[in-house]
Amino acid sequence: MSEKLLEKLYRDYIDCLNDRRFEDLGFFVDKDAVHNGQALGVGGYRAMLERDIQQIPDLLFQIELLIIKDHFVASRLRFDVTPNGNFLRLPVNGQKVSFTENVFYRFNEGKIVEVWSVIDKTAIEAQLKF
Amino acid sequence: MSEKLLEKLYRDYIDCLNDRRFEDLGFFVDKDAVHNGQALGVGGYRAMLERDIQQIPDLLFQIELLIIKDHFVASRLRFDVTPNGNFLRLPVNGQKVSFTENVFYRFNEGKIVEVWSVIDKTAIEAQLKF
Repeated sequence: MSEKLLEKLYRDYIDCLNDRRFEDLGFFVDKDAVHNGQALGVGGYRAMLERDIQQIPDLLFQIELLIIKDHFVASRLRFDVTPNGNFLRLPVNGQKVSFTENVFYRFNEGKIVEVWSVIDKTAIEAQLKF
Repeated sequence: MSEKLLEKLYRDYIDCLNDRRFEDLGFFVDKDAVHNGQALGVGGYRAMLERDIQQIPDLLFQIELLIIKDHFVASRLRFDVTPNGNFLRLPVNGQKVSFTENVFYRFNEGKIVEVWSVIDKTAIEAQLKF
């Protein structure tokens, strides 16, 4: 797969998340997908996203930076959101927070097979008012 | 600059950090370098690294994953270290912790001009014994 097509596919995946079209998730995510070392499969991956959206109803993935090489995608995602309770064990409770996620994906045959994600928790802590 | 050479240069930069050869830092880091939105320049960048090493004397940068495209480097770094006091406001106090950093670099004319770094604080928290 060309890097051009992989970029299109990745942007379609992000649109799928932002549109909450989880019935399409299996088109983008491998049935044996691994996320931060956990073998979630597409079912577990969907469950993770559904939990995220329950915690953060206005969750919107915004791509800030995209680096694509061979079958790897590196993406810097930006979030401007209002988690409704605890998020990453922080008492956000409906405060608006902005933070980033630096995330790497390995694709195989057009599907995400492995994800390495780090969320900037330090940035969220710095914004919280107690 | 070819991606092949950029990879060599990036690995030389990591060696420079691991060897504590900070007098060579200006070869790799631009005089106006920006780190997570802060205009540090090479002097501020060096001061940041010196603080890191004061907190973490056994700091060793290990490259786990490298994605290089045009003048961008995306790197997943792994650390198995023993911070001697507080680290990221966590009371690590000499406990051994393992964590990762997902970091993006933009190069210009062979030097790092901008860095977007996220450290996996959640992983450190999960390992601490109080």
